[in-house]
Amino acid sequence: MSGSMNQQILLKNRPIGEPKESDFAVVETAIPELREAEILSRTIYLSLDPYMRGRMSDRESYATPIELGNVMGGSTVSQVVKSNHPQFSVGEFVVGYDGWQAYGISKGETLRKLDPNQVPLSYALGITGMPGMTAYFALLDVGKPKAGETVVVSAASGAVGSVVGQIAKIKGCRAVGIVGSDEKCDYVVNELGFDACINRKTQNLDSALKTACPNGIDIYVDHTAGAILDAVLQQINLKARIPLVGLISQYNAEKLPPGPNLLPLLVKRALIKGFLVGDYQERHAEFIQDVSQWLKAGKLKYKEDVVKGLEAAPNAFIGLLQGENFGKLIIQVGDDPTQQ
Amino acid sequence: MSGSMNQQILLKNRPIGEPKESDFAVVETAIPELREAEILSRTIYLSLDPYMRGRMSDRESYATPIELGNVMGGSTVSQVVKSNHPQFSVGEFVVGYDGWQAYGISKGETLRKLDPNQVPLSYALGITGMPGMTAYFALLDVGKPKAGETVVVSAASGAVGSVVGQIAKIKGCRAVGIVGSDEKCDYVVNELGFDACINRKTQNLDSALKTACPNGIDIYVDHTAGAILDAVLQQINLKARIPLVGLISQYNAEKLPPGPNLLPLLVKRALIKGFLVGDYQERHAEFIQDVSQWLKAGKLKYKEDVVKGLEAAPNAFIGLLQGENFGKLIIQVGDDPTQQ
Repeated sequence: MSGSMNQQILLKNRPIGEPKESDFAVVETAIPELREAEILSRTIYLSLDPYMRGRMSDRESYATPIELGNVMGGSTVSQVVKSNHPQFSVGEFVVGYDGWQAYGISKGETLRKLDPNQVPLSYALGITGMPGMTAYFALLDVGKPKAGETVVVSAASGAVGSVVGQIAKIKGCRAVGIVGSDEKCDYVVNELGFDACINRKTQNLDSALKTACPNGIDIYVDHTAGAILDAVLQQINLKARIPLVGLISQYNAEKLPPGPNLLPLLVKRALIKGFLVGDYQERHAEFIQDVSQWLKAGKLKYKEDVVKGLEAAPNAFIGLLQGENFGKLIIQVGDDPTQQ
Repeated sequence: MSGSMNQQILLKNRPIGEPKESDFAVVETAIPELREAEILSRTIYLSLDPYMRGRMSDRESYATPIELGNVMGGSTVSQVVKSNHPQFSVGEFVVGYDGWQAYGISKGETLRKLDPNQVPLSYALGITGMPGMTAYFALLDVGKPKAGETVVVSAASGAVGSVVGQIAKIKGCRAVGIVGSDEKCDYVVNELGFDACINRKTQNLDSALKTACPNGIDIYVDHTAGAILDAVLQQINLKARIPLVGLISQYNAEKLPPGPNLLPLLVKRALIKGFLVGDYQERHAEFIQDVSQWLKAGKLKYKEDVVKGLEAAPNAFIGLLQGENFGKLIIQVGDDPTQQ
């Protein structure tokens, strides 16, 4: 601890579009006295992650926005230098959320101790930390990969994507990455063992996906939304699963891209699922039993909009698409002997 | 059977945008001789449904497109007038898929017999047919409503939507409809018993949804995608479920609306699910055990991009958002005593 001064990086301005260095302020501040049960720790490693862009804005995101003038938030690996907490001793290593500063003060509950003899300390910010855990549960718990399936991941050389592809391989899947440079493609295929990789900056995404995924796409771990999601959707297989873990494509956008904004889906861990009734044919009896009963009991009402004559069908159909019908639209083509 | 002539409506042109009457042709054709095991039936009722617009185009949809010059497809209720099939007798009523024509010839496998003493015959095209079954399973099987939750449905006075809202009420939920006229709003609330209804043509969707759904939205049965989905997404609750049963907003579009096209999601019955790793904290041990083992076994590789000095963080973060880092981006803020 160098005297009792701290170095901090504050959020100075809310960025418009891409953040600029002038949106941040580097300051020196005095370290306050420790209160009861508090721990002072020296930051060794700070993790930088795309989600931080969201917290710099004041529109809704994963978490409450960072206030202007406050220290930028972020996960950290640190060493305890002073402790008023019975469970933490000077010299111990911890992972916490001290943010962009050289020293942090925390309550014990937010810290987890690290064993320096297992893996390098910095791994707790990556493969054995939040990004690795994101890859692990997004792929295994939402994606539910089966051997032989094809898994695509965007930002494939990154902290999450690289682990997604490697676990996909461990589970017997075909792993296909999408990245932004040939160097990253090379790394993903030749170092990490992905089956294929696409450079989204130089290749046509549609045809490159077709070539890389000859059996279609079963799982897409999406970091981007936007154009990449759109291209992937064109080639998904029946009952494909798409865990949405990030929306890099719109973090920097001044105006939201057109089309439904999927950010709330992520923030609220919600799901959109395509539905076709044909999948439920074998459960027809269950449906008929309930609905007949509800109809008899007067719990279900039903309104029909009956148009007479087959030749009236085209015009009635045109109106249907404009919402002009009122009730279920039926064309009476011939006589109904039960209604006479 | 009036002589041996049939009246049929054919697809004449693939519509550009909204279908016109001139995209259809009404023709008289001879009814061919019945072959073995075939059934000739007289159409009483023909169902008209929005999905038919998709089959008029040659872009991928629920089913193969209708060929130009062929009879328009559609579900029908009919009476058997001639049968070469042992299981069907003249005079029996059946539901099938004979399409836009006065007489249809089918194999027995595609027909289901109807009991004319249960409910009106035409109900088999609505509340006790595909639309009712869509409402039933989309809400109950994908939506999984719990008493007290809020269910929103678009096209709420229609064949599917009206049943969704009424079943939501039966299950103890708050039911909110979205429709296109005050008359439909009135019907949905006062006849069907929905708790609230929004006229999307005269009301501001965002504020009307806020008023109608004071506790947020837990389930949205989506018939439209596009702008209505976008507005609903802004007000979904944690772990909301959105069964996507139609995309009326884009059936007529000459050019696809901007943003990801969700049609493949429906066609392939796929899912997009928002993911936040914070939900998995209690399963941390499971993750660490697998990943540590895979790291030790050399099955997982990990690359870091370490930048030295806290003051370098803003610039490194700007680069991260542009994909310039290579491996997990870490700022080394202070000395790591384990790496010396």
